[in-house]
Amino acid sequence: MIKVAVLGYGVVGSGVVSVLLRNKDRIRQNAGQEIEVKYILDIKKFPESSHKPLFTDSFDTIRNDPEIKIVVEVIGGTKAALDYTRQSLEAGKSVVTSNKELVALYGNELMNIAAEKGVNYLFEASVGGAIPIIRPLVQCMTANIIGEIYGILNGTTNYILTDMEKSGSDFNAALTEAQKKGYAESDPTADIEGHDTCRKICILSSIAFGSHVHPEHVQTEGIKGITIKDIQNAKALGYKVKLLGRSRSVGDKVLAFVAPHLVSDHSVLSGVDDVMNAVVIRGNAAGDVVFCGAGAGKLPTASAVVADIIDAVRHVHARRWIGWSAGTADMLIDPEFMESAWYIRTDATRDKVMREFGSVIFAENHNGGNANDGGEISFISTVINKRTLQDLLSRDITALSKFRILGDY
Amino acid sequence: MIKVAVLGYGVVGSGVVSVLLRNKDRIRQNAGQEIEVKYILDIKKFPESSHKPLFTDSFDTIRNDPEIKIVVEVIGGTKAALDYTRQSLEAGKSVVTSNKELVALYGNELMNIAAEKGVNYLFEASVGGAIPIIRPLVQCMTANIIGEIYGILNGTTNYILTDMEKSGSDFNAALTEAQKKGYAESDPTADIEGHDTCRKICILSSIAFGSHVHPEHVQTEGIKGITIKDIQNAKALGYKVKLLGRSRSVGDKVLAFVAPHLVSDHSVLSGVDDVMNAVVIRGNAAGDVVFCGAGAGKLPTASAVVADIIDAVRHVHARRWIGWSAGTADMLIDPEFMESAWYIRTDATRDKVMREFGSVIFAENHNGGNANDGGEISFISTVINKRTLQDLLSRDITALSKFRILGDY
Repeated sequence: MIKVAVLGYGVVGSGVVSVLLRNKDRIRQNAGQEIEVKYILDIKKFPESSHKPLFTDSFDTIRNDPEIKIVVEVIGGTKAALDYTRQSLEAGKSVVTSNKELVALYGNELMNIAAEKGVNYLFEASVGGAIPIIRPLVQCMTANIIGEIYGILNGTTNYILTDMEKSGSDFNAALTEAQKKGYAESDPTADIEGHDTCRKICILSSIAFGSHVHPEHVQTEGIKGITIKDIQNAKALGYKVKLLGRSRSVGDKVLAFVAPHLVSDHSVLSGVDDVMNAVVIRGNAAGDVVFCGAGAGKLPTASAVVADIIDAVRHVHARRWIGWSAGTADMLIDPEFMESAWYIRTDATRDKVMREFGSVIFAENHNGGNANDGGEISFISTVINKRTLQDLLSRDITALSKFRILGDY
Repeated sequence: MIKVAVLGYGVVGSGVVSVLLRNKDRIRQNAGQEIEVKYILDIKKFPESSHKPLFTDSFDTIRNDPEIKIVVEVIGGTKAALDYTRQSLEAGKSVVTSNKELVALYGNELMNIAAEKGVNYLFEASVGGAIPIIRPLVQCMTANIIGEIYGILNGTTNYILTDMEKSGSDFNAALTEAQKKGYAESDPTADIEGHDTCRKICILSSIAFGSHVHPEHVQTEGIKGITIKDIQNAKALGYKVKLLGRSRSVGDKVLAFVAPHLVSDHSVLSGVDDVMNAVVIRGNAAGDVVFCGAGAGKLPTASAVVADIIDAVRHVHARRWIGWSAGTADMLIDPEFMESAWYIRTDATRDKVMREFGSVIFAENHNGGNANDGGEISFISTVINKRTLQDLLSRDITALSKFRILGDY
């Protein structure tokens, strides 16, 4: 029997305890021994909980208990979570987490401590919720040189975009609906401004390309600027609007950014709706491999956390082979040099657009810029980089929206 | 340095040698040591090959060479492949394979020999080509009780169905096209009659549910009966036709079968076209997780084989934790008891269909059974099991085609 402590009894923490109980037999079989939760740390009291005797507010009790071999950090944030993770690893305990912020900011340092102490720091649940992505990347794509990783990495924004598309709601109404359903937090900033997606693409990039990619170096654009018109125009052109985190290897540098994109109706990603997430890994032998599933939620996230706990039980003294070196800001390439076709919504005339942009594809749901649609048109440009795009737009074409079209350029 | 022998220098074998060379540095880094191909066994001669000195036609040389720790069996079939696999494992060498037929028929026996000898028998490439599926199922979904697995598991048939849909070709023309492009073999029986899909769903079922599911016990229907009308009718109803292997756990039994299905245009699977494969795993915590990628091809399959080689290098003396017990025929439940909505194409009248089937959804591309469409109509039934369906059809409604609609029933 192995004993674990769960730090934080919120959505994920209670899910972890629940999955450990619900699938006890299967988990014992897979782990090779029973896994028992000895402590649950939370500043709140849960007097009604059937796990009441397990609650503690003393992290020291957990750190000093030699029976505790694995600490599950599902507090979130970077304050207590960072402190307790460091202390747990220093005390020779493996740590399993779903905390993408912590991994994106301090992953390199924390893995170094884990390596030094001969324990594990595992974070499968930090990207893609239930989707197995970190382990497949590290263990299954090993024969490949990874060229690119991208995906729909945030369930809240994907829910909002899907709702806008399906119900015709505007952004604010869709956000309110998402909050009502528990898919968006009361302060939704980290999700809708793309920071959460940014943290996740940083973690994936760091693993795939070997150096720590820091969130503050990654250009990040959220979904607040997307209007219902953009969603409708995209549909008329045969696309859906999705927020993507993208990262590719360019020589010994990394090009990473977060931005809304148009993805073709014929792509697998266009079927990834609501709170689903999807990650595409491009290997030089495997080609594109896509992983989809529930990107968030109590049990899906717990599924990934518990898989890591089982892995840590099986390899309690072994160092796992995830790791990357410290990164630098100059390792990142500015995405403005990356070419793509662009979706543009503008109040300029068709003639003007054709004069400046040459051959473009206009969305057919407009009436050529007449009063009925507010004088707006939308179109898809040829393949150009962002600098060229901005140069063309500077010639008196106001882009009310501009998004990249996902494609093989 | 670790030395391996590659048995069979066909598409996959030459791909394996090619990937090992092309990604040598990355592979050495991931494996912890260099991997060198010492022998290539093939009955054919390759006098022009740059690997000429490695070729041998003597398996005994390989078996008796203590330097060979890993044997890569990519011969295919169950004759020499079975014999050499047994001998290699008995000689204490790990075996890595892409041979789904061998694993589906003899997996249990071969894994038992491997376990006895303390070596590995690994077969990630046997299902889904490049898609990491076996390792995620065994290592990442460990916190879940798996309820169901299904997917598009054969690239040839998926290519043919996609071609019929996109170009309007009939089955024979699409098959010829697939053969021209190298996506179908000159004898395409195993693919188009569903046997290949059957082998793969057997392997996935055996892993997920713990007992060997034998291909001869699994009802298997291929794609030869699918007409261009079915494809068009499905489209009019908002679906695509896909050949699925399906398997679910029902109590301590398994319900597994292979048959063409209609999948909704809104599903992730509908975006899985051409030679792409996709596997859906339903866990009781994770929910549905979907894995997509190239289901066949030289480098994609080699990507999975080489990942297994790397794994075997890392765990050269350890037994891997894949395994299942011997299965029995009575472990399988007849799919006729499984409910679903059905797509039916018939020459019966609408009135007659409504009289027998009650409330149905008719495809709108028909003219109500008039001469223009040969007097045919097509419709989707309510949710009923196959026995009820056959009972209804026996009342003088001839089903020209009948396929299940994939859905959550």
